[in-house]
Amino acid sequence: MFPVLKNDRLIKSLWREPVDRTPVWMMRQAGRYLPEYRATRAKAGDFMTLCQTPELACEVTMQPLARYDFDAAILFSDILTIPDAMGLELYFVEGEGPKFKHPLTTAASIHNLSSDVMNELAYVPNAVALIRHELNGKVPLIGFSGSPWTLATYMVEGQSTREFKKIKALLYEDPALLHVLLQTLADAVTHYLLAQIKAGAQVLQIFDTWGGILSDSAYREFSLRYMRLVVTGINSNLTEAERVPIILFTKGGGGWLEDIQDTGCDAIGLDWPIDIGRARARVTDGVSLQGNMDPAVLRSTPDAIEAEVKKVLASFGRHSAASGHVFNLGHGITPDIDPENVAVFVEAVKNHSPAYHS
Amino acid sequence: MFPVLKNDRLIKSLWREPVDRTPVWMMRQAGRYLPEYRATRAKAGDFMTLCQTPELACEVTMQPLARYDFDAAILFSDILTIPDAMGLELYFVEGEGPKFKHPLTTAASIHNLSSDVMNELAYVPNAVALIRHELNGKVPLIGFSGSPWTLATYMVEGQSTREFKKIKALLYEDPALLHVLLQTLADAVTHYLLAQIKAGAQVLQIFDTWGGILSDSAYREFSLRYMRLVVTGINSNLTEAERVPIILFTKGGGGWLEDIQDTGCDAIGLDWPIDIGRARARVTDGVSLQGNMDPAVLRSTPDAIEAEVKKVLASFGRHSAASGHVFNLGHGITPDIDPENVAVFVEAVKNHSPAYHS
Repeated sequence: MFPVLKNDRLIKSLWREPVDRTPVWMMRQAGRYLPEYRATRAKAGDFMTLCQTPELACEVTMQPLARYDFDAAILFSDILTIPDAMGLELYFVEGEGPKFKHPLTTAASIHNLSSDVMNELAYVPNAVALIRHELNGKVPLIGFSGSPWTLATYMVEGQSTREFKKIKALLYEDPALLHVLLQTLADAVTHYLLAQIKAGAQVLQIFDTWGGILSDSAYREFSLRYMRLVVTGINSNLTEAERVPIILFTKGGGGWLEDIQDTGCDAIGLDWPIDIGRARARVTDGVSLQGNMDPAVLRSTPDAIEAEVKKVLASFGRHSAASGHVFNLGHGITPDIDPENVAVFVEAVKNHSPAYHS
Repeated sequence: MFPVLKNDRLIKSLWREPVDRTPVWMMRQAGRYLPEYRATRAKAGDFMTLCQTPELACEVTMQPLARYDFDAAILFSDILTIPDAMGLELYFVEGEGPKFKHPLTTAASIHNLSSDVMNELAYVPNAVALIRHELNGKVPLIGFSGSPWTLATYMVEGQSTREFKKIKALLYEDPALLHVLLQTLADAVTHYLLAQIKAGAQVLQIFDTWGGILSDSAYREFSLRYMRLVVTGINSNLTEAERVPIILFTKGGGGWLEDIQDTGCDAIGLDWPIDIGRARARVTDGVSLQGNMDPAVLRSTPDAIEAEVKKVLASFGRHSAASGHVFNLGHGITPDIDPENVAVFVEAVKNHSPAYHS
């Protein structure tokens, strides 16, 4: 159905099979640091049109691959498409981040949500299929979703926040109601990611952007538990041959690596305050690690970027059948980065990583 | 010179000696959630006048002790007094946080800094001495400072930031220059904390508010290293009898507990994403732990607050000669908290902690 995959470094590393060098991609690699992205974004008019028009989403997904030797493409979309499809109406105000026209403010608004969102979200698998064709087997395509907990924070807060007052009030005052919301979201995320696989996604990443704001016990109960449901739900609906590697990324989740591995995921995304070698020593055979350079390094000099890439590679050490490494930043690239520095970053991984593979 | 200390639970717990129950205090316990604080703040006119007038600093330090059975007072001051004394001129814009009139923008501005700041900062030991007398032995007085790294972030950025672009550019582009700044700050912080001890501070806390934004190797090189210099510098200038317990608190520092203990500090402050029982299992004999309830819990119900206090107490477990527990929030209390809920919090620690002490 799709062309044969020519560069399978990412998938092999995630399955812990031998590769010639460490694969590399970047969170938000299709984004505002690229002038060609800003041009397409301007052409689209607003951000949601960009996400909802498969041809435009495909165009921006492909842009970084024309410039850099990335080993993966990642679907261009937003983590908040599911709440939008549930009727909350996502919109963006310049400089203020995402907002919902109808945030969840009552118990009824939570009980009335339906996890049956794929009619509204047909544009996402359509984009996935189009991108797969356009990629023509060059590199694999990563699909993604926000985690149930992360989606819930935006749906209850109604917008970006630094304090999470509303969602934490709900968590501590009416945990049963929050569980209703998270169960609905886990079902929706499972359908959504299965639809992406069916349309052609070859790897999945779940972004738990806000798991790290929780206490240890709250993280287990309200974030990790529902990511486990999603991983299990996806894999139990697929044959062994249909399965794709699943990466879980909890920002600020360095304290929970053992627990994240225990969900059954195939790889753990790391942010940058954790040493990747120490992280590797904590998990057991059977999980790969993705990360973990501080995105701020891209704002500095070519020498500093190369030195930091070498440091991360050396810390992870040799690829093995127990754990593979996928090079990435510890969070998304920011809009102010010079595209030249991204080239330095990618070349540094290409040049210095073969020594860690046989 | 000062009245005998009647309530020594905090100091004994920090030295890992037996106590009847777990001591409790709160970061920012003298603060905007209290109407009497807001009244004194209004009387002072601006925030720096409040810090720089020992009588007013003493007044707000004492306020929470009149309401609650806290086991400690903490000097009312700001972590940015040292850079202010170095000539950067600290000021506050309502709703925007701290700013400097003269941030560090050149290498010369860094080389010209002097660590000899105590002439400018005489108001701090004066406030400490006044508070000690006013406390009249009721509870011990905690002195504090920002960590060298945390002070450097504000001095280079010139204000609060979420991205830390300037300080990280300096770190990656000219680490030698950043080391000059951090060495000067470590010397100043050491003088500053020794002066607080001499004036009557009975415990010290070093606030490393921004250590957690660093990569593992950068944290060791630019934050931890200088906190170690401060701890060593303080203790080597004191006789055994003069020593006071030193608490190091790195926000987001849960990955570095073993390394923080290795500085020679007496206690580690924990934020809330880490389980305090797991933290205890990671450190060795000879360090106490402080924390670690999510401050957001105080925004919920009395039942939820009590349940969360019990959870933290149970996770730490029994006090021992290897490790004592000081109950605290994982970060400062926020201005929107109902003072009634603080009473619930303190009473819960008082009522439920004796079971963990013999």
